[in-house]
Amino acid sequence: MALDGVRKRLNQRISSQDDYFPSTYIILQFANNVHIEAVQWVIFKIQSERKYGGAELLVRKQPGVPGETSLIFHVSATNQKLMELAEEQSIRKKDLKGSLRDFTVVEQSEFGSCSDILSTSEKEFLVRHELENIRALENEKAIPGYPRIRLYEGQSISAACVHYNLLQQVFPLHDEDVLRKLGRKWYLSLFKKQPFEEIREYFGESIALYFQFLGYYTYALVVPMVLGFLQLCLAPENIALFCIINVLWASVFMELWRMKCSELAFVWGTIGMASSMDEPRPNYNGVMGVDHVTGRLQPQCPRWKTQLKMYTVSIPLVMMCMILAFFVMLLSFWVEEQLRGSPDCPHWLYLAPSIAYAALIYLMNMVYRRFANYLTEWENHRTQSQFDRHRVTKLVLFEFVNNFMSLFYIAFIYQDMDMLRSQLATLLIISQAINNFQEALLPLILQYYSSKMAQLKKRNSSKKWQMPTSPVDVQELSADDPRILQALRESRLDFYEDPYDDYLELFVQFGYVFLFSSVYPMAAFWAVANNLLEIRSDAFKLCCSYQRPMARRVKDTGAWQRAFQSLCTLSVITNCGFLYLSPAMRSVAPDASPAEWMMLFVCLEHVLLALRQVLHYAIPDKPEWVRLALARQQYQSKQALKKQRIEKTK
Amino acid sequence: MALDGVRKRLNQRISSQDDYFPSTYIILQFANNVHIEAVQWVIFKIQSERKYGGAELLVRKQPGVPGETSLIFHVSATNQKLMELAEEQSIRKKDLKGSLRDFTVVEQSEFGSCSDILSTSEKEFLVRHELENIRALENEKAIPGYPRIRLYEGQSISAACVHYNLLQQVFPLHDEDVLRKLGRKWYLSLFKKQPFEEIREYFGESIALYFQFLGYYTYALVVPMVLGFLQLCLAPENIALFCIINVLWASVFMELWRMKCSELAFVWGTIGMASSMDEPRPNYNGVMGVDHVTGRLQPQCPRWKTQLKMYTVSIPLVMMCMILAFFVMLLSFWVEEQLRGSPDCPHWLYLAPSIAYAALIYLMNMVYRRFANYLTEWENHRTQSQFDRHRVTKLVLFEFVNNFMSLFYIAFIYQDMDMLRSQLATLLIISQAINNFQEALLPLILQYYSSKMAQLKKRNSSKKWQMPTSPVDVQELSADDPRILQALRESRLDFYEDPYDDYLELFVQFGYVFLFSSVYPMAAFWAVANNLLEIRSDAFKLCCSYQRPMARRVKDTGAWQRAFQSLCTLSVITNCGFLYLSPAMRSVAPDASPAEWMMLFVCLEHVLLALRQVLHYAIPDKPEWVRLALARQQYQSKQALKKQRIEKTK
Repeated sequence: MALDGVRKRLNQRISSQDDYFPSTYIILQFANNVHIEAVQWVIFKIQSERKYGGAELLVRKQPGVPGETSLIFHVSATNQKLMELAEEQSIRKKDLKGSLRDFTVVEQSEFGSCSDILSTSEKEFLVRHELENIRALENEKAIPGYPRIRLYEGQSISAACVHYNLLQQVFPLHDEDVLRKLGRKWYLSLFKKQPFEEIREYFGESIALYFQFLGYYTYALVVPMVLGFLQLCLAPENIALFCIINVLWASVFMELWRMKCSELAFVWGTIGMASSMDEPRPNYNGVMGVDHVTGRLQPQCPRWKTQLKMYTVSIPLVMMCMILAFFVMLLSFWVEEQLRGSPDCPHWLYLAPSIAYAALIYLMNMVYRRFANYLTEWENHRTQSQFDRHRVTKLVLFEFVNNFMSLFYIAFIYQDMDMLRSQLATLLIISQAINNFQEALLPLILQYYSSKMAQLKKRNSSKKWQMPTSPVDVQELSADDPRILQALRESRLDFYEDPYDDYLELFVQFGYVFLFSSVYPMAAFWAVANNLLEIRSDAFKLCCSYQRPMARRVKDTGAWQRAFQSLCTLSVITNCGFLYLSPAMRSVAPDASPAEWMMLFVCLEHVLLALRQVLHYAIPDKPEWVRLALARQQYQSKQALKKQRIEKTK
Repeated sequence: MALDGVRKRLNQRISSQDDYFPSTYIILQFANNVHIEAVQWVIFKIQSERKYGGAELLVRKQPGVPGETSLIFHVSATNQKLMELAEEQSIRKKDLKGSLRDFTVVEQSEFGSCSDILSTSEKEFLVRHELENIRALENEKAIPGYPRIRLYEGQSISAACVHYNLLQQVFPLHDEDVLRKLGRKWYLSLFKKQPFEEIREYFGESIALYFQFLGYYTYALVVPMVLGFLQLCLAPENIALFCIINVLWASVFMELWRMKCSELAFVWGTIGMASSMDEPRPNYNGVMGVDHVTGRLQPQCPRWKTQLKMYTVSIPLVMMCMILAFFVMLLSFWVEEQLRGSPDCPHWLYLAPSIAYAALIYLMNMVYRRFANYLTEWENHRTQSQFDRHRVTKLVLFEFVNNFMSLFYIAFIYQDMDMLRSQLATLLIISQAINNFQEALLPLILQYYSSKMAQLKKRNSSKKWQMPTSPVDVQELSADDPRILQALRESRLDFYEDPYDDYLELFVQFGYVFLFSSVYPMAAFWAVANNLLEIRSDAFKLCCSYQRPMARRVKDTGAWQRAFQSLCTLSVITNCGFLYLSPAMRSVAPDASPAEWMMLFVCLEHVLLALRQVLHYAIPDKPEWVRLALARQQYQSKQALKKQRIEKTK
């Protein structure tokens, strides 16, 4: 009953079209040549009531600016609507007494004053979720104005518009005041703790978790750094000991991170997200039906179809790509050997295969990335976290071959440790520095020039295209609203999809440090040096070089946890291999037969792997207090269910 | 309000002492020389109201029988009390519509007619739980009549009485009608499917799960059995392939069992049992306090104390015991070698070390078992499932050394495969047959003679001891009640603690079959033959040779799952080792250097271990429908909690 009243008021508001328009949460930028009918339809959908398949959000058109031709809309929502959405999405918030629980509209006074309850990232998340959740109804078979773009019932309309390039961009708008304050505490304070809570409130859980991981991992690197220095000072026969400590430390660290992660997820209220049970992604392809869990109307598609696609198509294809990448690597080594072998070849040509290989990797990576995205999309995973997990897994496997296989080849086939060391040094010192520059500053520079170019172009071409003639039936923002220029400025920035590339950098670095720790003990030092810079350059990049990233709710590092753990396992194997090959070690027992000598390291390896397993069992995945708190919650809700049933029976 | 009325009625019933007494669920047999004061106190506690720390159960004294001197009481409960307990313990039952949910008293009509709702094992479980949950109050510092037996607040009184031998036995009474029907379907029907549902209803989840596992595992053995026969027919170079299939099959089977297990736990309503969150065990030692989860008054003891004890004392001690057992084994081999080496030694003496070793193992096992029980009790685990897990882990580690180390020694140090084969054949064929006889028939024979002996003894001693003079203030059962003789008869049977020994047998057999599958391919055949017999002999044993076992609610095979999985991992290693040593394999590549040859098998082993990991990830631990059903339950109870809060706010 209370909700009905609220809706009525909301509708009155939309129809009266009063002048107040709250903060813009999402910007929609349509393509230049879009049919006005399609725009009108989309905007109508966004504004109209739920019973007509709408989202009940507020929309304003951006007035035209001289020289700018794109059709831009600002999307927002009333506070009341946001509260309703927060309840629907089971956002967990701390109430005034400090205990975490699901937010409900009726109890909003218990959570604090109305406008402060939700963080800006949560509001943006809720509005975007609502926007993406506008789905084609049964009678909507095509997008108006585009009879050839067919829709199926339950398809996300915004996802379809993005897919067919009607919508050029959908992005959240920065909040410049908050951003300035955040920046001061974050990338401008080089030696202070990162302001994690503010990061989460502004960028959402996914990005906050990345920075938590980056910080945590950098602390953890101090151990191998110290061990590395000790190793350099001591006799080479002692490296076995350091190496073992190092490898075990990596495992302990990853187990502790898992614990830390569940702690964060609990505090953030995302721990209950079951990866296969929450809301379907906008691109999820299925027939509308009653959901088995929630009883709501949601697209449904049997899980076995996804699994069939994965096992019969995706996995074999990914394997083939990995094998291909492996052979490309072998080829580059083979060509190099051939060149070095032939007496006529000039010396400078020796480098050619490496350079060609690097270029080829770059190209292959680009192609493979699109391919992996396409495959994962085609597999049709239900939730965003499943999608991310499978996408990341595909990408990481390929990156693993590209980044580490050549080093393994040098290490175990050439057995040339000096070459390996110099390669590692180059990768850790020079490549990382270049990367940091490229990430944080390059986009700014490029964007500066590209905006200049675009202005020039537009000045020339503005006569060819005109604003759609039939006006869209939406109020315009007042011409002096500062958001107009902000939206134009940010529309030219790059889009930050997810922290995939940032995690990948750490993944590769983690590999350099732990896989080769017995060969190149200085790796950890360079990694720490890089990461101290990385924290701030990534922060700067997010605040200044990119559009505001979309807030994502996550409960853990997903596929990355598994990827890093696999590296830990692998590091046991490689380090035992290096110790086996090490001449310094060999001199300890010169009388052992080759088979005995190998047996020794195989045993060492097995003991270490078993220890890893023991650590996995011994370190719980949730701290005691989180387990207790979760059990309490579960107990209380079970009791409530019982009570509800009893009252019904009465 | 409804409950209060019920309680009043119940108390009237107790005070009016009417003649009706429902089925006996638990028998209490006091020690012969017990102080009558203590008996009176215990019986009062059992009958009195909860607010006085009682259990509100019904008790009848067993009238004296000529020649029998022990003081026996029958404990039961009214149907209404059982219903209340079922609600308190969150017993999940199918309602008439067929959907599983927590039972509540108010809704009992929805679950069927009053007396049929709970199975006999559930009733027994509830009564026993209530009995064990009678805890010493603050002012009860000692057991009456025994001022030196100190009690602490919150100690389980029945556990204390058992510990100080005041209570000689506490056991459930068989239900002879049901048992006869069950036996006909079970051990008397050699080639029919086991009646799992009836087993669960009569013996409880723990034992039903054992028989489910036994059946499932026996089916799974068909694969290695067929492979074993094929292996015998084919050339010895092909064993590698069979061996790989075998090892992978073991892993697949264990993953599938995990899935099956969660399915069963869901249907049985035990899947929600969080191992660290449910009811404390009777022997759990802690100060009474408000439980963080349920808000009820329960003994509390911080978890870190348990962990400290485990890591600083238990684990080192268990390790030392294992090392000791290992050295005893080495010693027996060393002595045997010495004997064989000395020319004066007669041939029959060669066997002496083995026999001495076998005897020593038997003794060590007996001592170690008590020691492990004591240690686990001292660690003070909160719940029964935690206790069981840690106890089983301790025992299995030791048994592993005793059962497999000597075989490994023969295999990898002596490298005498013929000796290994003959050992395995002896163990699988003769030992198993003897075991089956010992388990099922020996107790019956022993018990027959011991009861004869006891009767003789009692006839001689009955004059020395007399029934306690001051009578206990409890009504007696009528002298012609058949339960009187039944209780006496069953009190002389052995007590069946838990399926530990039965699982251990399977564990050892699983080891013989899979660890040595490439050496002795016939193992699986003998294992299947044994298990077909084992199913029926275990069934017979439970129905006829032992007291009725106490029903235990479990959700999985606990520590055994991990133990079997460890054997799977180990089987990869041992089988690769056997292939490496096999002369038939060696002839395939006679030119490989020893180090290369070893490398080949190390690689094979790593690939297999990685495959195991992939299988673990690929096979989910719950079937899709269970995951959906659990998610729905969780969703519903969360919604109920929200609603409840909203209603409060209104």
